[in-house]
Amino acid sequence: MTPEFSVRPIGWVRSSLHSRDEAPRQGREGAPDAWLELNLDVRPGLDGIAVGDEVIVLTWFHQARRDVLKLHPRDDTSLPIAGVFATRSPDRPNPIGLHRVRVAEVAGKRMKVGPLEAIDGTPIVDIKPVLDVADH
Amino acid sequence: MTPEFSVRPIGWVRSSLHSRDEAPRQGREGAPDAWLELNLDVRPGLDGIAVGDEVIVLTWFHQARRDVLKLHPRDDTSLPIAGVFATRSPDRPNPIGLHRVRVAEVAGKRMKVGPLEAIDGTPIVDIKPVLDVADH
Repeated sequence: MTPEFSVRPIGWVRSSLHSRDEAPRQGREGAPDAWLELNLDVRPGLDGIAVGDEVIVLTWFHQARRDVLKLHPRDDTSLPIAGVFATRSPDRPNPIGLHRVRVAEVAGKRMKVGPLEAIDGTPIVDIKPVLDVADH
Repeated sequence: MTPEFSVRPIGWVRSSLHSRDEAPRQGREGAPDAWLELNLDVRPGLDGIAVGDEVIVLTWFHQARRDVLKLHPRDDTSLPIAGVFATRSPDRPNPIGLHRVRVAEVAGKRMKVGPLEAIDGTPIVDIKPVLDVADH
């Protein structure tokens, strides 16, 4: 039997993007900065993150389909169909978004980062520092 | 009320590492290659991944503590205590591991990747391609 694990949001994205249709495919394809609004109880977890840092934000694509295994990358029918794990589609079995962003402001339990293509209301599930040894 | 989301493993790590004590902190700090053994039903999702590709593997640190918000990075008491989101500790509210690895072999529903510091039996929750536009 396959186990299940429970992801609890640590906060929420506050963005000027309000629908998948208006969101770029990737942050660096024209996305705005956005606020990460953390739950008060996890606020101490931000200590040590400073303006200018690069961080990786993990989100939960709450509007995603989880039953998609093959698709045209970027919804572009001129591209050959690929397995979902060879793409960054938000539609995937565990719809976790991965966003590498730069910290623009830290204000209490809110942190401004960008560029971020996740839409307003997207749950945040983790924040990690970018490490040279791990991510380059 | 905070919602919860259910993560279902897409497969499991098969590694010569059997405990957190023997695992390096990061893959590139001496970790071996390991096999990702995918569940048969998600196997089509691997199509398009080739030997030599760089991919990001997301895992679920099933032995992690989820109530840690502040800690010494790398369990090194000579380093100042930091918020968990400023570290890559496996102990964190949503213990999702992020591993950038290279594909060494693809064989049916199994894929050899490395270097990978996740221990044997670690659930795999997602695989994503490294994208220049997103990850550099």
